[in-house]
Amino acid sequence: MDKVRRNERIGAMVNILCSHPNEIFTLNYFSDMFNTAKSTISDDVVIIKDLLTRFQLGDVETVVGAAGGVKFISRLFEDDEIFIKDICNELSSPDRILPGGFLYITDILFIPGVVERFGNILATQFYDARPDFVITVETKGIPIALATARALNCPVVMARRESKVTEGSTISINYVSASSRRIQTMSLVKRAVEKGQRGLIVDDFMKGGGTVRGLMELLHEFEAEIAGVGVIISTEDPGQKMVKDYKSLMVLKDVDEGERKVMVEPSPWLKGLIN
Amino acid sequence: MDKVRRNERIGAMVNILCSHPNEIFTLNYFSDMFNTAKSTISDDVVIIKDLLTRFQLGDVETVVGAAGGVKFISRLFEDDEIFIKDICNELSSPDRILPGGFLYITDILFIPGVVERFGNILATQFYDARPDFVITVETKGIPIALATARALNCPVVMARRESKVTEGSTISINYVSASSRRIQTMSLVKRAVEKGQRGLIVDDFMKGGGTVRGLMELLHEFEAEIAGVGVIISTEDPGQKMVKDYKSLMVLKDVDEGERKVMVEPSPWLKGLIN
Repeated sequence: MDKVRRNERIGAMVNILCSHPNEIFTLNYFSDMFNTAKSTISDDVVIIKDLLTRFQLGDVETVVGAAGGVKFISRLFEDDEIFIKDICNELSSPDRILPGGFLYITDILFIPGVVERFGNILATQFYDARPDFVITVETKGIPIALATARALNCPVVMARRESKVTEGSTISINYVSASSRRIQTMSLVKRAVEKGQRGLIVDDFMKGGGTVRGLMELLHEFEAEIAGVGVIISTEDPGQKMVKDYKSLMVLKDVDEGERKVMVEPSPWLKGLIN
Repeated sequence: MDKVRRNERIGAMVNILCSHPNEIFTLNYFSDMFNTAKSTISDDVVIIKDLLTRFQLGDVETVVGAAGGVKFISRLFEDDEIFIKDICNELSSPDRILPGGFLYITDILFIPGVVERFGNILATQFYDARPDFVITVETKGIPIALATARALNCPVVMARRESKVTEGSTISINYVSASSRRIQTMSLVKRAVEKGQRGLIVDDFMKGGGTVRGLMELLHEFEAEIAGVGVIISTEDPGQKMVKDYKSLMVLKDVDEGERKVMVEPSPWLKGLIN
């Protein structure tokens, strides 16, 4: 192979690292790829780390040890607060109020660029929890579950409202929806989770917390551990939820169907990033 | 701002372009960002285009005209054929045969890195069709729909098996499942699609083609156009499907429950990429 110049190496390494978030690449991997000394690759990594943080694009972390190397991770920057505020404004439009006082949010969940960014932001809160998988329940939680799992580099496991013949044997639980007080069922394919694995629960919306509670019980049945809970939007009411410890990106303060008013705000931990 | 060196600019530009596939960024955007002449940015773009193709990571396309600029797009490389072959081997494992002769594929669909790559490969076939949105039906089609839409830079629209009170008024159709011959319903929120828009139909699995046919009829009800059909796996049988024109990544040749044999192969258009 012809000699690869530094700016070519940096371009290729940024592409590879950023396309595989939280995945460790050894320096050998790159030094073989570019036929270059490891010390040169080390210098490249320093440049990449600096440029990513300088332009608020992310970060590169060095992992030491036998399985060591470098990996791309997301960081919180001031631009994230601006992004979440913009989404809050968009969601606070009266056009989004549906009969019954529901808020139409589905379109936002299914814009790849938006939900990928939600996932990157949520992931910053769960790197240390080192989940083996992200778990959600069909249907609307799937995009944010995938986006968070992408950033954390782990698979998604999907619980279903009813078990399907095309997926093999399942374990089911019953749980009570906090808002409707109805008994519901969710089931998960047996082969999807192993005992002792750590599951991060992710969903689009949380009101009373019944669904998340159900997912916790399901993980308990699999003798799996709970690595954390993350949602896009939580409601201000009820203040007392069935789940205590969770991270949400936004808080739905109020939907007033009569007055045609709705208010969505960034969660407190996402405020004050802007200097 | 301090002077930004070429390798820093290239690193940042690669990150921005690759994180927003098929999205046009003007040269002014980058020249403002780095406080550099447009001609310098033009030179950077040439270097980026060369390094992405040289290392088989993608491509950068220049779009001329008033709304012109540069954008990252996926390309088919020999490594894609190797990737799809590896997945075919994985799916051809007898462990995946479920009672009734079904094949367990859900886990593969929900690994973010795998499904993102499926989406990048499928997208190469539909850039020219310029879809305004990707449409799928819940549930297992969602990951590949999102991944394809990410690569094409458009939203996903999700049809549902039953309409939900939290999503507003819908249009429903009945259709016949080609394999089970049963009548099924699918519905789509009215506000999700506008007349004249172009929808790309994407799903995980196609046997008889009944579901895709149903999605076509649904688009017809919205007076929307069909930009194409893409699936991850199509079955060899029946050869005569309810849909003629589609692209699949893999072909399921045979599931023999008695003999515990299953064979999945790359689709013909994905063979012969390796020199």
